[in-house]
Amino acid sequence: MIRNIPAVEQLIEAFRKLPGVGKRSAERLAFHLLTAPQDEARVLSDAIRNARERVTFCSVCRNLTGIDKNPCAICSDPRREASTICVVEHPTGAMAIENGGTFRGLYHVLHGALNPLEGIGPDELQVEKLMRRLSSNDVCEVIIATDATTEGEATALYLAKRVTSLGIATSRIAHGVPMGGGLEYADGATVGYALEGRTKFPPRGE
Amino acid sequence: MIRNIPAVEQLIEAFRKLPGVGKRSAERLAFHLLTAPQDEARVLSDAIRNARERVTFCSVCRNLTGIDKNPCAICSDPRREASTICVVEHPTGAMAIENGGTFRGLYHVLHGALNPLEGIGPDELQVEKLMRRLSSNDVCEVIIATDATTEGEATALYLAKRVTSLGIATSRIAHGVPMGGGLEYADGATVGYALEGRTKFPPRGE
Repeated sequence: MIRNIPAVEQLIEAFRKLPGVGKRSAERLAFHLLTAPQDEARVLSDAIRNARERVTFCSVCRNLTGIDKNPCAICSDPRREASTICVVEHPTGAMAIENGGTFRGLYHVLHGALNPLEGIGPDELQVEKLMRRLSSNDVCEVIIATDATTEGEATALYLAKRVTSLGIATSRIAHGVPMGGGLEYADGATVGYALEGRTKFPPRGE
Repeated sequence: MIRNIPAVEQLIEAFRKLPGVGKRSAERLAFHLLTAPQDEARVLSDAIRNARERVTFCSVCRNLTGIDKNPCAICSDPRREASTICVVEHPTGAMAIENGGTFRGLYHVLHGALNPLEGIGPDELQVEKLMRRLSSNDVCEVIIATDATTEGEATALYLAKRVTSLGIATSRIAHGVPMGGGLEYADGATVGYALEGRTKFPPRGE
């Protein structure tokens, strides 16, 4: 039986550790790499090794950056507005906001959210680093863009309290019905937030 | 922007080549490996390299096997019935049948199916190897277990013609409603096959 080959078994187990990859997907990925051209497996193996060797965390915002570019491209860009810092849980959050293309400020990546049950408190996140950043720079506003989950909301409340104590304004990104999404596909909590966060329409002056 | 780091970009591209992995999934997998413990990325990278180095194709049936076990565990098992050969498209097909736990014969892996539009003819598959195997061994039956796709059916017809010309019986695995699956979830073609392939019930003698 194929699965009894140790090297295949180890490959399937390694794939299963990835997020969203179950037993069946892991087997499919493993068999694909085993029967694909030799080159494809080598390229993926090298890409994983390379990425870990050549990518590190920005010393300022803790986002991912190349080892040859620290502080990262955003932190070292003089055209970005250093007076606004957007706090996200993960590098993927910063990437999502960059893809939006409208934010011109800087980021701060927490690498998680408060989760007392799993032992994740402020010390496990990049919170003190954020506080030091705020006290030594001219920051006017901190936009809290943690996820719309229980942990994300708790983290947002905690950060708002800490940041406002420094006399810096905080704001929270809006929750509501996504653009392009029909109202009938939105869940109850989202509809509730969308109603509660309603704004005057049409906007003044139009 | 994070995606501008070349090593990250290469990792995302390498993941995108895997089956069923789109742009979003590739980004998620890449960011997971970049922020996971260093060990996890190393284990996956090594597992991919190792698997390609230590796994080869069985010289008899073309299924996957360890380089130290050729012919494979199934081909070299004297308890398996060498008189029956089950032909599958891919190693995953053989694994699925082994998981069923009832088949006691041997396998032959074609590594694909006939697909003239993509230039895959009998010479691109392991067909001649199968014919040589059949002419030099005492095989009584060839079970054709290619997929229930247009290509799989065409391959089945082609193989049946070639194999019966050697005076060896051929059979095709049954198509029908899967066990545990409600009739209302089966597609029209499957229901058609299930009706056409109906068997006497209860079986004689019970």
